This record gives sequence, C-alpha cells and structure tokens, in this order.
Amino acid sequence: MLTKQTEDFSKWYNDLVLQSGLADYAPIKGCMIIRPYGYAIWENIQKGMDIKIKNMGVNNVYFPLFIPERFFKKEAKHVEGFNPQVAWVTYGGGKKLEEKLAIRPTSETIMYDSFSNWIHSHRDLPFKINQWANIVRWEMRPRLFLRTMEFLWQEGHTAHATEKEADEMTKEALNMYNDFAKEYLAIYCIPGKKTDAEKFAGANYTLCVEALMKDGKSLQMGTSHQLGQGFAKSFNIQFLDEKGGKKYVWQTSWGVSTRMIGGVVMAHGDDKGLILPPKVAQYPIVIIPISFDSKTLGYIEKIEKILKNQTINYFIDKNEQQTPGWKFHEWELKGAPLRIEIGPKEVKENKITYVLRDILKKENIGLKQFNPEKLLNVMQKRLYDKSKKFTLENTHEVKSYDEFKEIIKNKGGFIKTHWCGDSKCEKEIQEQTKATIRCIPFDQTNKKGRCIKCGKEGKFKVLFAKSY
Amino acid sequence: MLTKQTEDFSKWYNDLVLQSGLADYAPIKGCMIIRPYGYAIWENIQKGMDIKIKNMGVNNVYFPLFIPERFFKKEAKHVEGFNPQVAWVTYGGGKKLEEKLAIRPTSETIMYDSFSNWIHSHRDLPFKINQWANIVRWEMRPRLFLRTMEFLWQEGHTAHATEKEADEMTKEALNMYNDFAKEYLAIYCIPGKKTDAEKFAGANYTLCVEALMKDGKSLQMGTSHQLGQGFAKSFNIQFLDEKGGKKYVWQTSWGVSTRMIGGVVMAHGDDKGLILPPKVAQYPIVIIPISFDSKTLGYIEKIEKILKNQTINYFIDKNEQQTPGWKFHEWELKGAPLRIEIGPKEVKENKITYVLRDILKKENIGLKQFNPEKLLNVMQKRLYDKSKKFTLENTHEVKSYDEFKEIIKNKGGFIKTHWCGDSKCEKEIQEQTKATIRCIPFDQTNKKGRCIKCGKEGKFKVLFAKSY
Repeated sequence: MLTKQTEDFSKWYNDLVLQSGLADYAPIKGCMIIRPYGYAIWENIQKGMDIKIKNMGVNNVYFPLFIPERFFKKEAKHVEGFNPQVAWVTYGGGKKLEEKLAIRPTSETIMYDSFSNWIHSHRDLPFKINQWANIVRWEMRPRLFLRTMEFLWQEGHTAHATEKEADEMTKEALNMYNDFAKEYLAIYCIPGKKTDAEKFAGANYTLCVEALMKDGKSLQMGTSHQLGQGFAKSFNIQFLDEKGGKKYVWQTSWGVSTRMIGGVVMAHGDDKGLILPPKVAQYPIVIIPISFDSKTLGYIEKIEKILKNQTINYFIDKNEQQTPGWKFHEWELKGAPLRIEIGPKEVKENKITYVLRDILKKENIGLKQFNPEKLLNVMQKRLYDKSKKFTLENTHEVKSYDEFKEIIKNKGGFIKTHWCGDSKCEKEIQEQTKATIRCIPFDQTNKKGRCIKCGKEGKFKVLFAKSY
Repeated sequence: MLTKQTEDFSKWYNDLVLQSGLADYAPIKGCMIIRPYGYAIWENIQKGMDIKIKNMGVNNVYFPLFIPERFFKKEAKHVEGFNPQVAWVTYGGGKKLEEKLAIRPTSETIMYDSFSNWIHSHRDLPFKINQWANIVRWEMRPRLFLRTMEFLWQEGHTAHATEKEADEMTKEALNMYNDFAKEYLAIYCIPGKKTDAEKFAGANYTLCVEALMKDGKSLQMGTSHQLGQGFAKSFNIQFLDEKGGKKYVWQTSWGVSTRMIGGVVMAHGDDKGLILPPKVAQYPIVIIPISFDSKTLGYIEKIEKILKNQTINYFIDKNEQQTPGWKFHEWELKGAPLRIEIGPKEVKENKITYVLRDILKKENIGLKQFNPEKLLNVMQKRLYDKSKKFTLENTHEVKSYDEFKEIIKNKGGFIKTHWCGDSKCEKEIQEQTKATIRCIPFDQTNKKGRCIKCGKEGKFKVLFAKSY
C-alpha cells in the first residue's frame, strides 16, 4: 500500500520510489541503486539532452574521477564551499598515497588544468566541453534521487574570450534546461538568478530553473554558472587575442543530475503512483491481454505493428500468474502513460480500450483510428499545462511578513515578494520560516516595492519557498 | 612528426593517441583524459553495443561506486585477485570513516548483495542487468586506453536457475562481443577459453576474444565469465524452484572497456596515422573545400544534402588559416575514413574527388553516382578482411620449442601449438619467452599432438602470444 500524499508526502515519495522499482537503497548509507525502471528514465533524459548539448556546439569528453588535493585547493572559494562534502582516497595499490585524491564533487579544477594546456589563442575559443559522469558529495540527510552521496549528472564547461560571451553561454545553457524540462519532463520551471548566498562556490553568479513540487516545496532542476575569471587566474588559462595581447578567459559551467527523476515523481505523481511523461517513460505504452487465446494475441500483434511503425517503446504484460486487475493497479503505480486492454470484446469489435494515466478514464477507439503517438503527445502537453497551472495557483503575493509566515507554514508554494537585496534579511527569513530565496526571476515586472522583512526600498521581486 | 611503426611501435602508439586528439595524460599518474575525438568513438561503441545488450534481454542499471570492505572480502578468490589493485576511501564529509570503502574494481560484490534481495523464485530468473560505468584499478605501468588506473566499461551480470543456462549466457555474451568487434571495430578476433592461470578471480571459467595487433602482440578485447555458484553462496542468492526446493543461482558476468579504442588504433593504424572504421569514427566523412568562393560552398551544400539523407556524420573543415595540403595530412593523421575534396574543378565537372583512408588513392565520381554509405560500407568490410588476413598470416604452427622461441623473439604473432594442460609448462614458457596462452580457441581441430614444452600428450591446441 502506498501512503497518501496528503498524509505524509515524504513517506509517499519514498514508498513510491521503492515500490515502483525506480531505485533501491544501497548498503552504503547515502548511496542508491538505480534500478532498470528508473535508469531507463535517465537514459531517455540523456538521449534527449545530449542532442541539445551537441546543438550548442559542445563536445563530450571524459576526465578522471580523481582530483589531486593541490588542484582542488587552488580556487579559494571553491575549496571552501566543497571541502566539507569531499570523499578522500588515501590508499591505492596497497600503499598509502603521498598526495590524497579527492573524488570529484564537480570537475572545474581537474578540467581547467587541461584548459591551460589546450587554450592558447583566440582561435581556440569558444572552447566547449561536457561530460556525463558520476559525482560524490558526502551527504548527511540523504533522500533517494534528491540528495544522494553519489549521483549521475552532466557538467558542461566552457571558456570564452569575453564576459559578454560567457554571459550568453550561461543563459543559453539555462534556456536549454528550461526547454528540456518543458518538452521532456513536462515540468514548468521558473528561470532566474540565485542570490549571492545561494550561488555556486567560485561563481560570479548562478542562474537556475526552479520547479514547484506537489507538496509546495521548490526543487532546483538545473543550474548554470558564470564563473568569471577566478578559475582562469588560479589555473592560468590565458589566450593571445587578435592584437597579440595575453588575456584570461571567461568561463561557465552548468549541470543537471539524476535529481530530475525525483522532480518527475513529485511534480506529477498522485495517490495511485507515478505519472510518467511519455517522453521519458521506459514504456510509454503497456498492453495488458485480458485473455490469452490465439485471437487476442493475434490482434495484439496488429497493435504492435502500429507501435513499431511509430517507434514507440511498449511492454506486453503476458504474466499469466496475475489477474488483469492486479496489472492495472501495478502499471498505475508504475505510471505507464498509456495502458491498452485487449480481450475478446475488443477483437470482436475491432476496437482498442485504453486508459491514459493522468485522467484514468477508460476509452474506446477503432483500430484504424488509433494513433498512439498523438494520444501520447496530447498527454505530454496536458501534464505540462497542469504543472504550469499548479505552479501559478500556488504562487502567492503577500502584503505582510505575517502573511508570508502564515502561507509558508500552512499552504506552502512560492511567495513572490520584494527584497531589499541585503543578505541579513534573507538569512533572518530563513531562520524564522525555513524558506529561502529560490531565485530572482528573470521576469522583474513590478519590481518596485518594499522589502517584506525590513520595509526598506526593494531591489528585486524574488521567489521564496521551502526547498529540497 | 609521427614515429614510424617499425621504428618503435610503442612510441608510435603514444604519439598517435596524443597527436590525433584521442586522449591526453591526466595530472594523476595512470589516469587519462578522453578528448572529444576519442570520446566520440566510445559513444559510437556504446550506441552500437547497447542495442545488442538490450536484445539479449538485459536491462541497464546503476550501482554505487563504493563497495564496503566487508562485502569486498566475502568471496575469497575474488578479493585475493583484486585486493592489490584497489583504491580505498578512508575519509568522507570531514571525518575518518568507520569502515573503509573500496572504489569498484568491478561490481560483482556490491551487485550480488542486491541480487539476494531481489531474487526469490524461479520466476525471477533469468535475471539480467548491465551497467556502463567507470572502474578503478591501481596500475603501475599505465598505457593510454590499454591500461589506465580509471577506465570506462560495461559490465553485464546475470543469474540463472541452471548451470546450462549460465553456460549459454556466457557464450552468448562472448559471441555478441565477437560480432561487435567484426561489425563495428572491423577487428578479427579469436574466441576461446582462458586457462585457469588467466581466468577471472572468482570465476569457474573465463571466455575471451583476442585480437592480433600490428606489432604481433595480442590484445584481450572482451571477457565473459561463468561464475558458478561461488558468489551465490557467499551472498546467499537462493531461489525456490518449481518443486519448492531452495537452490543457489548460477551466475555470469562479462565486460568490455575503453581499451577497445586502443585496439582500433593498433589493429588498423599506419605510419600516416589512425585508420578509423567508419562505424565508430566521429566523422566518417570530412569535406575539405579547396577554395572558399560561393560556387564551391554552394556545391558543398548539395553534398551535405546527400549526407543528411543517409544520416552520415560529417565535418567541413572551413578553417581558412590552413592550406588544403595541411588539412589532408591532418585528417590522415586523424584517420577520417572518407575525405572529400571540392574545388572549382569539381564544381565545373559536377564531380566529387575523394580519398578513402585505407587505400589513399584519389578517385573521382559524378555527383549523381556518389553513394557515400556504400563507399563506407565497402571500406568497413575491407578493414575487417585485412585484419583477418593479417591475423591468419601471423599465426604460426611450430614443430619445436626452439622454433617457438625464435618466432616469439623475432616475428611475434600467434603461435598455435599443443599444450599438456599443466600450469607448470605454461609458467615456464612465460618466464622464458614472455608469451602466455591467450586462449584455448573454440576451434579444436587437430587437437592431438605433443606439448611444445614437455613433450607429453597434449590436451588442447592453444594460442600463445605476447600480450598487452
């Protein structure tokens, strides 16, 4: 039995991730095992996003897992931010190591050492690479997919001749994440900028896409950092410009991780289980035979032909040990977007009975009229529209700090309000309400107003929320 | 300048890997950086092989990088074999760990702990998973791609109800590797069985595919292990059979790694550089404009249309800083399979001038007759035929141990001869000649004969060679 969302959202989430077969706990505290049903989502994310990454002129590479301590320590703010989370290798090949090795918590330092070997002239710029890799960050309060000691991600790293180009790249990567979340994950995101308190350790500034989960908390779906010239100076990444002068490059880095799978669970799921967007589901379509006579199985082969023509992945649940009713329940838990039920009635009437996971209504259509691709596209769009509607309905404008506290405590969601720009107010609000500034949205209409905390003239209109 | 193969093969290899941009040394001894041109080959290998893996009914998963020491120690032979190569994490999150964590040198032990949670009944069998992951094995004599401290690989792991099924799976995986090497890498392999001295630590037996490199040494391209019930007993992986009895599963594991890229370099390359098989090259086709007038560039667009229709990746080298001659040399070094040269002459005559990398002859064809897919397929097959011919020509049958030693010392290649089956002879031959038994080929015609070392009745006809 799945816990109800309204009863205990956190327990609902854990139960669902385990019961649907997305992931399992690992024997090492804080780590997880991504099981086939969950890994297939990651593969679909990778396939879809890799095309977008390559379309930005970025090439894939692979850098070592290990970072020598001396590299890791080169950029002061970076080491300060990441040091507490690092796992260290001290023994290898039967010997104690002379220099301990950090397991990458992110790859800026190991990559930028090579940048200084590869970048010499303005003709080498822009330089754009990406890697799909595993990352380790020590984690005290692990949650499956959301915060795990090891996770999978992509990290893009670029170097540019000018600040303007670095700004554009930072924005381009963020827009790509925003488009991806919409097209593939059917999740509505708010794009914006992090405050200095929340930015990446070593960045000039950090852009992000934030999405509202069904419990009213915000999940950071992806980040894109403009790194300025700090790393370039620490790692001596210089180029000769057109006039022969030596200059430091401007850099960016940007990433998304397996955490997005947790976002898919929490943005769409309901009390019956997962609702997977067709574009990332392992099986957008599951066919459940109501009987196993040759006529029914032959009829199912006709449906398979249609699916193969449209290159849609599907699964036929031929397990004769379980009843159709049990399977309906199971595939609702697993969030299969489109369930097809075929029995003697459908064969006789030359029809298809189907259920879309998000609306759960049994419908019929003639075999000739059946267009699964269209049905899945409609569902994909409907999920996104619902995510957008939910976010807008749960974005509150408040008049007073009391109202702010009341909404955070009882309703959740985003609070859109003015902020003076002072990290003191930001910190006090966090201490008093546990809500943080998730982002300064790019959309700054009506940005004038008084800071919700101190009453001084506001600098920005920001989004507060509790977060993962 | 590239060192000549005949001068110093080992230096030729290193020069070429670095100069062609496949990989670079990392700041940690023994590690490497896989650069875009090399990583693209790995991506093509992954794409091609992943389809074959899924066609065997295997699902992809992801297990943690870390293995608790107590797990790692559970299977006695396994720990004995791998312990000297393991890197250990002893600090994490700012604290000394209570139990040190091994970085996976292979994932049997961490995976099979979960197998015992997931496998209960004969209905759960066969159970087949695979992961694409990074692996760490401490390495004293590193070589780019061939032996690196960290490498990328896939590891398939399966559990079966019977020994026979495990035998079949072990063979099926090996056949898949053999087919893959032929179809994608254009490398002729000898499939066979390892001797007990060379088998995987913890396996009943190991199957392998071995390929002859141009310097006459053998490279192990892939291995497939029948693990028996050893791990099942150590990790208590039991199932209820149809009659309700409790039984241990039979297991297999099998893998290939980024080492295959080294195989591609050494099986096909020549004194001018790489020769990449079209199926794994980042750009099977490179177009070099001889001039940059609008007519030439417009004509190239017509060629692009043909390539896009056939979904062939290509690169147009539009760098105006370099001469066409420089580019011909560069793309020969980088082993682009098909080079197209377009200048005013080609435009005027409505022709295409092209050079296939393996035969390096300038040829002409009318634009309408130009079928790049066909040309590339012919080249792919020709590379394989050449690899096969080279292997057969360098496989020597010997009459005496003196002849054996002479060939290993002066010619290299495979020596096909009889062996008594005693590990004493195997070890003495290795000590005296550095050649080892690469495999006991499946093809055992004329297996009767006297052991080349001791003269006793031979048990097998085996392949000896020096190896990587």
